[in-house]
Amino acid sequence: MDANDAFQLHLQKLPPQDEKTFETIYTLGNGHFGVRASNPLQGNNSHFNGQPGMFVNGFYDLTELSYGENYAGYAQNSQTICQLPDPRFIIFELDGIRSDETPYDVKLVDKNLDMRSGVLMEIFDIKSPTNKQFRLTLQSFASHADKHLFVIKYSVSALNFTGALTVIKQHPYINQQIQTHSEDMRASQPSTVLDRTFIQSKLPIMQISTRKSQLALIVAQQTLNDNQMQVTMIDDLPSHSKTFDLTQGMAQSFSFVYAISFPHPLLKTTLSQSAFAASAEKRLANKSFKQLLDESTAKIDQFWENSDVELTGDDNLAKGIRFNLFHLYQAAGNDGLTSIAAKGLTGPGYEGHYFWDAEMFMLPFFTYTEPAMARQLLLYRYHTLPQAQHRAREMGVENGVMFPWRTINGEESSSYYPAGTAQVHINADIAYAVDTYVRVTGDDDFLFDYGYEIIVRTARFWLSYGHWATDDAHKDQFVIDDVTGPDEYTAMVSNNYFTNRMAQNNLSIAVKYSNQLKHSHPEKLVALNVTDEEIAELNRAADGMYLPYDHERKIKMQDDLSTSKPVWPIKDTPRNQFPLLLHYHPMTIYHYQVNKQADTVMTDFLFPKDQDSAQLKRDFDYYEAITVHDSSLSRAIFGILAHRLHHADDAYHYFMQTVLMDLSNSQGNTGDGVHAANMGSTWLSLIYGFAGLGLEKESFNLSPELPEAWSSLRFRFWFHGRQIEITITQLAVTVKLLTGTPLQFYLKHKAFKLTKDRLVNQALN
Amino acid sequence: MDANDAFQLHLQKLPPQDEKTFETIYTLGNGHFGVRASNPLQGNNSHFNGQPGMFVNGFYDLTELSYGENYAGYAQNSQTICQLPDPRFIIFELDGIRSDETPYDVKLVDKNLDMRSGVLMEIFDIKSPTNKQFRLTLQSFASHADKHLFVIKYSVSALNFTGALTVIKQHPYINQQIQTHSEDMRASQPSTVLDRTFIQSKLPIMQISTRKSQLALIVAQQTLNDNQMQVTMIDDLPSHSKTFDLTQGMAQSFSFVYAISFPHPLLKTTLSQSAFAASAEKRLANKSFKQLLDESTAKIDQFWENSDVELTGDDNLAKGIRFNLFHLYQAAGNDGLTSIAAKGLTGPGYEGHYFWDAEMFMLPFFTYTEPAMARQLLLYRYHTLPQAQHRAREMGVENGVMFPWRTINGEESSSYYPAGTAQVHINADIAYAVDTYVRVTGDDDFLFDYGYEIIVRTARFWLSYGHWATDDAHKDQFVIDDVTGPDEYTAMVSNNYFTNRMAQNNLSIAVKYSNQLKHSHPEKLVALNVTDEEIAELNRAADGMYLPYDHERKIKMQDDLSTSKPVWPIKDTPRNQFPLLLHYHPMTIYHYQVNKQADTVMTDFLFPKDQDSAQLKRDFDYYEAITVHDSSLSRAIFGILAHRLHHADDAYHYFMQTVLMDLSNSQGNTGDGVHAANMGSTWLSLIYGFAGLGLEKESFNLSPELPEAWSSLRFRFWFHGRQIEITITQLAVTVKLLTGTPLQFYLKHKAFKLTKDRLVNQALN
Repeated sequence: MDANDAFQLHLQKLPPQDEKTFETIYTLGNGHFGVRASNPLQGNNSHFNGQPGMFVNGFYDLTELSYGENYAGYAQNSQTICQLPDPRFIIFELDGIRSDETPYDVKLVDKNLDMRSGVLMEIFDIKSPTNKQFRLTLQSFASHADKHLFVIKYSVSALNFTGALTVIKQHPYINQQIQTHSEDMRASQPSTVLDRTFIQSKLPIMQISTRKSQLALIVAQQTLNDNQMQVTMIDDLPSHSKTFDLTQGMAQSFSFVYAISFPHPLLKTTLSQSAFAASAEKRLANKSFKQLLDESTAKIDQFWENSDVELTGDDNLAKGIRFNLFHLYQAAGNDGLTSIAAKGLTGPGYEGHYFWDAEMFMLPFFTYTEPAMARQLLLYRYHTLPQAQHRAREMGVENGVMFPWRTINGEESSSYYPAGTAQVHINADIAYAVDTYVRVTGDDDFLFDYGYEIIVRTARFWLSYGHWATDDAHKDQFVIDDVTGPDEYTAMVSNNYFTNRMAQNNLSIAVKYSNQLKHSHPEKLVALNVTDEEIAELNRAADGMYLPYDHERKIKMQDDLSTSKPVWPIKDTPRNQFPLLLHYHPMTIYHYQVNKQADTVMTDFLFPKDQDSAQLKRDFDYYEAITVHDSSLSRAIFGILAHRLHHADDAYHYFMQTVLMDLSNSQGNTGDGVHAANMGSTWLSLIYGFAGLGLEKESFNLSPELPEAWSSLRFRFWFHGRQIEITITQLAVTVKLLTGTPLQFYLKHKAFKLTKDRLVNQALN
Repeated sequence: MDANDAFQLHLQKLPPQDEKTFETIYTLGNGHFGVRASNPLQGNNSHFNGQPGMFVNGFYDLTELSYGENYAGYAQNSQTICQLPDPRFIIFELDGIRSDETPYDVKLVDKNLDMRSGVLMEIFDIKSPTNKQFRLTLQSFASHADKHLFVIKYSVSALNFTGALTVIKQHPYINQQIQTHSEDMRASQPSTVLDRTFIQSKLPIMQISTRKSQLALIVAQQTLNDNQMQVTMIDDLPSHSKTFDLTQGMAQSFSFVYAISFPHPLLKTTLSQSAFAASAEKRLANKSFKQLLDESTAKIDQFWENSDVELTGDDNLAKGIRFNLFHLYQAAGNDGLTSIAAKGLTGPGYEGHYFWDAEMFMLPFFTYTEPAMARQLLLYRYHTLPQAQHRAREMGVENGVMFPWRTINGEESSSYYPAGTAQVHINADIAYAVDTYVRVTGDDDFLFDYGYEIIVRTARFWLSYGHWATDDAHKDQFVIDDVTGPDEYTAMVSNNYFTNRMAQNNLSIAVKYSNQLKHSHPEKLVALNVTDEEIAELNRAADGMYLPYDHERKIKMQDDLSTSKPVWPIKDTPRNQFPLLLHYHPMTIYHYQVNKQADTVMTDFLFPKDQDSAQLKRDFDYYEAITVHDSSLSRAIFGILAHRLHHADDAYHYFMQTVLMDLSNSQGNTGDGVHAANMGSTWLSLIYGFAGLGLEKESFNLSPELPEAWSSLRFRFWFHGRQIEITITQLAVTVKLLTGTPLQFYLKHKAFKLTKDRLVNQALN
């Protein structure tokens, strides 16, 4: 395989899918926005089947949630990411017939995404109602150098005629409405019509406000090397147009750049409209397509330098892995004000909400390979601490904070609390992610300025929400009632193993860092009002945490009552009745032992030292038998544990079931957006799984074992300012220190010394 | 006190209340419909503060329920009783000014409800914008002889002028819209506009259809002794009018009768429109006001003959008791197709739904005093068995039926399943009521034709919904997970004591009646497919039913985990934070031991032989301390148990806190309708409580003990075709057999023989 081909995603090499799926797969994004790769002639035209649109991270509208019975403390609004008009939209006019009025016939000839440059190349053959055919070629990219820019080059060439072709490139907001979409389990919501305000500036820069959330977006359109296009104003918005004289075989091209920005509501300072306008003007200052592309490509080069995972032995799989990593990169907010939505910025699925999977399934990739991005993602949670504190009080929790289960702006947006707000483990998940980030990066400034505060305030939540038991079964242990674990097929239980174990960890690391900072930064403890008494109390709760265990089966119990219920007859359930939550009432599902996804075994995964392999095997066997994997987050965890149990076939099988989820549309809903957390799981499976990377003492450990089908696996990561490269083959593992000072690390828990001069190369028995 | 006065409810003798409260208190009804006693000039006019309207039992519209997250099996529609236009509505015209266009000044002078005749007498002094004053006197009643008739006599007399007064009595549906109201925890719903269809007949009889439920109502208006009123048709509806020449002091009067009926959707046969029209015509056949009234009063006389409870020593209380009994009589459906709504037919509260309290709190009054009415109320449940079977299947329950938590038409209408559908105990509640009815009345025909089927099919539900446990804690016992007991401040628990005990009873009586009918009516068992194997299985589950018990505290445990939670700080909670469900998120409330209402102690009440008095006292003390009585159903149960514990003061105190609930508007929401179940509790408290009536062996037992404040208590009931009268004083109890054959009964569990010739008169210690 040509090395370059390994980064090309060619339409012809993908299995056939519907139009919406390809729109998602080929979405371009940069963490700030994403643009679906739709038919550029579609716009509002219902004649076509696509779902065009742009999503800006953090830009949402509110829609009122309605409840049959409404209770105090219920989330009152759904935050829904806005589906913004498509900046790729273009109008052609031939023989006086406009393509936005009379549909032209559009045939997709080719698409290719170059994951090295980030350029999407598309070819459409278009036929007018008067049977004139021409070819439209698009080259577009979302800039990774200036996250506010989206750039498109259009080329047209006549196929069967010679003569005039008029192109009209309207500002996207002319005749286009913003949608706040709904999907998933939610009722449909009305679309939002935007107010328009003209900002005085040299350029016709528009501010557009959402109706209820009152966010203001600026989308400016400007030509690049403008080819003398004519500008007319429609509704105060610019519309560029030009009539080309086409001769067959001679392409004519023109380029546009869009500047997209908005004053994020989590910004402490309010930027003036004019400051935003000035910034947009500056961005639109004349640069060429190539110049903008080169700047962006340089950033992507850096990303691959840090983050590429090179697998040999299965080219198709290797490309699928890169596709997943590239999409993670495209999805991740990078401004400290946004995070990674469940569908990235590729579609309206899950309303653009951030969940726990941002920290638990996607963040590890960034923590190890792009720590600066990981830091920004954690800062998002830091910036929403005020909302999390308010929520805790609203829920009657006197101390600490309570992060929302699903949110954009930091407020709870889950309307079914048993599978939403009750998943209080998200508090501990975030704290776990902070701890991992600090341990991997050694970023003590972050710990001191932000991380410690997150850990302490989440830990306090557990002291308020849990309590010391007095009943026989739990006597003198710390218990936590009325929670839902990751498995949403069981809800509102007492002592969910995962939740209690994660809470215990949250408490423990609060104690650990308190004791550490007490000496180095005592003023920080004073500022957060952390006393010795509180540290002792946190410590007692951690030590006394109740962890339910079935002594007969010798397994960790999912919750106090879990193993007493009958087992759902999984084998007798018709395939078309999955996922169960779409076919059975929650009460019916809760009535059985059946797991939507890895729950208790997540603790076997996250806390490998908790159990020996016999315990792990019992837990794995018990829970695997009752898990239906209706969540895309499930199989990766089972796969990693299978690896630890040296069930190489199982590990490989689980991995292969998920790694191509979006490229093969195996869940059937890629059209609504990619499964970003599953993409994060790909990295987890490879690095935590097959490479067996984990933290050990002050360093890391590797326990690699490759599936037989693969020849080698190479990847890099950063550890305390050092970049390390790992190459694993069937026979050996090679560890190289690329930058930084020497360190000791562990291979299968045996210590090795690593220096820049001397790589470690060890045979794998 | 004049004996007659004891049945007069005079406005002047009631504490001052707002207009809506009095509208509710003075509502006239007959089980088929209820008419609020509103300002008759209000109509649609928002100038006034009332909430006029008529409610027809079983006549509802559907409004779509919307959920933030919608799951399979969720109730899709809310059934909401229609708030129909007020038949009392009248228009006056003086000096060319119509009172429906320009508001007249209306002053309520007096109201009095004669609970013997059922006539409501009201006096209003009315002033026109031109300062002409006249007095309007209304006499109205809902006929108890012909349940479809509402009759009104209007009298007008000039107060400060002589001259012309025009009265216009429009058909209620002219310019008036039907509302489907919402309240309680529900979001507001749009009003329903009705279609009108003219039915060909001699009279202008209109059929009016609801929009979504497609029910058709007929409301015909006709004059009585018509006083030569002029009839004009407006929108095909009759409007009667007449101009009176008033001289001061000389009253002029005119009367109307309304015929209200609809083909009930639970009727197996579909009646034709013309049949309904013919029936309305017949009803409107010329009768005088007095004639109609006499027929109705005769029925009410019979009611008091059977059902009066005569208390001496507290006249105000005695009248309050009668008020409650009269409202129960007004509320109870009597056609086998309807039941008793939580607010009777007095207001839009709880959307006009029937709940478990119909069977558990109201039915006993009818079972003992008006068994024919009790039979009709139970038939309603029988007629909704198909819906209950459908619901069971929808919820994944393979056998038996699952009655809805809240409903009008037999389908589930609860939109918050943890405090709705999860209250599966309603199945066992209905079975308990059937059993009680059969044991009290000896109505074997009912048992054979209907009751046995209800009992068997509800019992089967438990076999499917519960299961035999294998875990250590419950080994080899029958357990029931994922239920909510009567206490809605705890939800979705395992082994709720009340639910399990009631289920056990349901199973036991299914076995009892199966064994009984196996000999007398084997064909019935064949028809219901009841085999010996199934009887054995029902019996095993009853015997093996797990009943959670706290061996340390020696109390019945509300559920598997209840006593492990911290106790809600009731004393530290500000008074304005009650009821808790309006001020705290459900998750917050569930997090504590706090009872909305009697739950576990309901079993101490319903199954007196389950425990000795020491056990009763421990249960009572424990649960009383954690109960906040946020439900109006709570205090009566604690009061009855206090009586059993010989805590006379407590029993009296609890009783007095609830008996005048609506007359004193102590809950603050009587304006939305009376608390019908609380009215039922009044009878329970008096008869099950202070008189200590209960079933014993094949007969009944009395354990009377009057509060010191009372001189005597007299009441009657029917037992196996015999009418019995009980008179209790501080010193003695007298038991008389009024009709029927001799029987043995028990007084403080000691047997006595009762014949018509020889009453039993026993001193009380």
